[in-house]
Amino acid sequence: MKKFVIPANARSWVPGANASDFPIQNLPYCCVDEEGSSISVRIGDSIVILSELQEAGLIDENLPVWDGTEFAFEAPESRYELRKTLFDLLSQDGDPALKDNMALRERALVPVSEVTLYVPFFSRQFVDYYSGIHHAGNVGKMFRPDMPPLLPNYRHIPVAYNGRASSVVEDGIAIVRPNGQTKGANDELPAYGPTQELDFELEMGFYTAGGSDMGMPFPISEAEAHILGVVLLNDWSARDVQRWEYQPLGPFLAKSFATTVSPYVVSLDAIDPFRVAGIEQDPAVLPYLNDPEPRCYDIELEVMLKTPAMAEAQVICRSNAKHLYWSFRQQLAHQVSNGTPIEPCDLYGTGTISGPDEGTFGSLLELTWRGSKPISLTSGEERTFLEDGDTLTIRGWCQGDGYRIGFGEASGTILPAPPI
Amino acid sequence: MKKFVIPANARSWVPGANASDFPIQNLPYCCVDEEGSSISVRIGDSIVILSELQEAGLIDENLPVWDGTEFAFEAPESRYELRKTLFDLLSQDGDPALKDNMALRERALVPVSEVTLYVPFFSRQFVDYYSGIHHAGNVGKMFRPDMPPLLPNYRHIPVAYNGRASSVVEDGIAIVRPNGQTKGANDELPAYGPTQELDFELEMGFYTAGGSDMGMPFPISEAEAHILGVVLLNDWSARDVQRWEYQPLGPFLAKSFATTVSPYVVSLDAIDPFRVAGIEQDPAVLPYLNDPEPRCYDIELEVMLKTPAMAEAQVICRSNAKHLYWSFRQQLAHQVSNGTPIEPCDLYGTGTISGPDEGTFGSLLELTWRGSKPISLTSGEERTFLEDGDTLTIRGWCQGDGYRIGFGEASGTILPAPPI
Repeated sequence: MKKFVIPANARSWVPGANASDFPIQNLPYCCVDEEGSSISVRIGDSIVILSELQEAGLIDENLPVWDGTEFAFEAPESRYELRKTLFDLLSQDGDPALKDNMALRERALVPVSEVTLYVPFFSRQFVDYYSGIHHAGNVGKMFRPDMPPLLPNYRHIPVAYNGRASSVVEDGIAIVRPNGQTKGANDELPAYGPTQELDFELEMGFYTAGGSDMGMPFPISEAEAHILGVVLLNDWSARDVQRWEYQPLGPFLAKSFATTVSPYVVSLDAIDPFRVAGIEQDPAVLPYLNDPEPRCYDIELEVMLKTPAMAEAQVICRSNAKHLYWSFRQQLAHQVSNGTPIEPCDLYGTGTISGPDEGTFGSLLELTWRGSKPISLTSGEERTFLEDGDTLTIRGWCQGDGYRIGFGEASGTILPAPPI
Repeated sequence: MKKFVIPANARSWVPGANASDFPIQNLPYCCVDEEGSSISVRIGDSIVILSELQEAGLIDENLPVWDGTEFAFEAPESRYELRKTLFDLLSQDGDPALKDNMALRERALVPVSEVTLYVPFFSRQFVDYYSGIHHAGNVGKMFRPDMPPLLPNYRHIPVAYNGRASSVVEDGIAIVRPNGQTKGANDELPAYGPTQELDFELEMGFYTAGGSDMGMPFPISEAEAHILGVVLLNDWSARDVQRWEYQPLGPFLAKSFATTVSPYVVSLDAIDPFRVAGIEQDPAVLPYLNDPEPRCYDIELEVMLKTPAMAEAQVICRSNAKHLYWSFRQQLAHQVSNGTPIEPCDLYGTGTISGPDEGTFGSLLELTWRGSKPISLTSGEERTFLEDGDTLTIRGWCQGDGYRIGFGEASGTILPAPPI
């Protein structure tokens, strides 16, 4: 697959872009209209409206920028050409057609403060992997203390479950605390009411490009061409609901009520310079999952919590995407290995990305060790799980030499549960 | 909710309709165009093309018959009015506007042999419940012999998992045997190859109508108004893949490769006369799941197997939908109870509907008791699981007094796995 990796020393003429999280090396997709209907690109503090560039004859007139699903269905060459053209139009020493046309700049470069960003692409399917090996190990230690922390299949198969696409929402949408059925260890009968263990999960996710036919898997060597790009993702979870419902078929209502994604879809080309070996895969994986090293990405991740009593958000977790055991390409190759048809804009979560140490865990379940070690906040408050009014924010970036590839934020504030 | 239940003694003027599985009491929806784009109704051996009736001014001009999702989003009153109007136009003693207009009959009543029927509605979400209590018990006996067959949550919570909507296919589509990762009890390492334990699951399913907003559950009293109708469903399963992959997050690739639905969506009005009490729910369910009796339906179900060596298919299972522990309404009320937004045309499977006795079990896993008791076929062959070339067909009907409400068939033939 042809990649278009923009050199670290490239610079843009767009004011403020070079020192921002969205320099010319990034160019992530986003959507300024509801339901993926106007695909755009961010640079600096501006949103580049692709339909305006198209009207001005500067990008391919056939690119379906008004339909995210059609856009994602395009061949990888289309996205390669778009990235190349945008680089040329936005770099200091490139084509001046946009730079020197002030009327067009006015229309095509809109301050991000003046637009609303929606879910970047409309997904029919949301699948959530379980590829954070430290998270899986922590869960094992907590819930199966007498057994090895990792189940026997963990290092052989990228474990996953199907999630709910209809509740995937964009950064900033408030999250209503779910009601659910729970049963305490000493309760005779279950009860239905607001979850008492509302948690976040620090994840990333990728959107698919193109598609595949039923019964027709593609090899892992073609996986990268089927990945549109990467987002931050919070798989909100109700732990008390999960404990009671999940046997034997896995999580259902404990996670279906909401999933938040960041608004920017960062291409694998943009983060290609940040590939790292990651955790050694031992034993060797089966050939259909073999992803040549370096298979992981060095993406810094940070989780912040702000209660209504706090003036500023407090960082409660610092982690890194390099802690994922299974790569994006391995996850996608596994999904199609049984002939499942994929479609453009399917969304795949990575699973919770915990680091190996305290303070790097990607959920309150782990950070407070099942509620036994509350987190102390700067306001003097404590938290075991999320309370109404709390705002939880995930941030992420790749730190390059003189530039930074930002992913934006995935944030949500908790609202009280509806009356029963 | 207003129901339109057609009396048992009503008769249609459509030739052959009264003695068929599709008498005037049935009137199920189907789709004669790809991706839910022309909603129609079956009577006798004819498909009633709704767009032709609409053009002739006989049904509501605003009904979106060209878009299944829009059709399913309509208020329940629209479907009530449509059913009433169709009854009037198709019954012996009703409005003669269609009956007496031979030119219109030619256009609007097309022999079923002349059309292709597709998946009736396009689903963004497929959820599969586990409401067959005898199936859940059998699985418990086989896989957890030292424990009570049912897990503690079974009689309190309608257990379910999210499935894959992109591989839901219509009756007659061939099913490619999936490759998958499996590990025998005595194998040191897993291997990737064609599943050796390809199974069916005898299920029914329902499509949703209307929708709900995120964080805004509706009560179970409104569930029926949100159910468009009912289909037969086969949740094809790879048992060896399932055993290895399903801990701790449930089935994933073991079931995502294919799900077959019958082409006819039978309304709850059509099967209302067949409501029965079903299995007593003891202990009492929580109020949000309380569905006044009779909550179940007496729907006869039959599974047939035909190998390439057989001249005729052989019945291998007879069961009944009344063996479901949780009703359609309870399943939907549970889904929305945590604020998950539903959308028009979501598809919900019931789970495998096994009866209490041998010969009524809804999967080969149970019928052959994990492969230990092969099924003898009329051809002299035996089967533990499905082999390439086998055709598996599910049929269903409600037997009334002098009429029968048929569901059609959900059938599929197994093709060899793709080369690795």
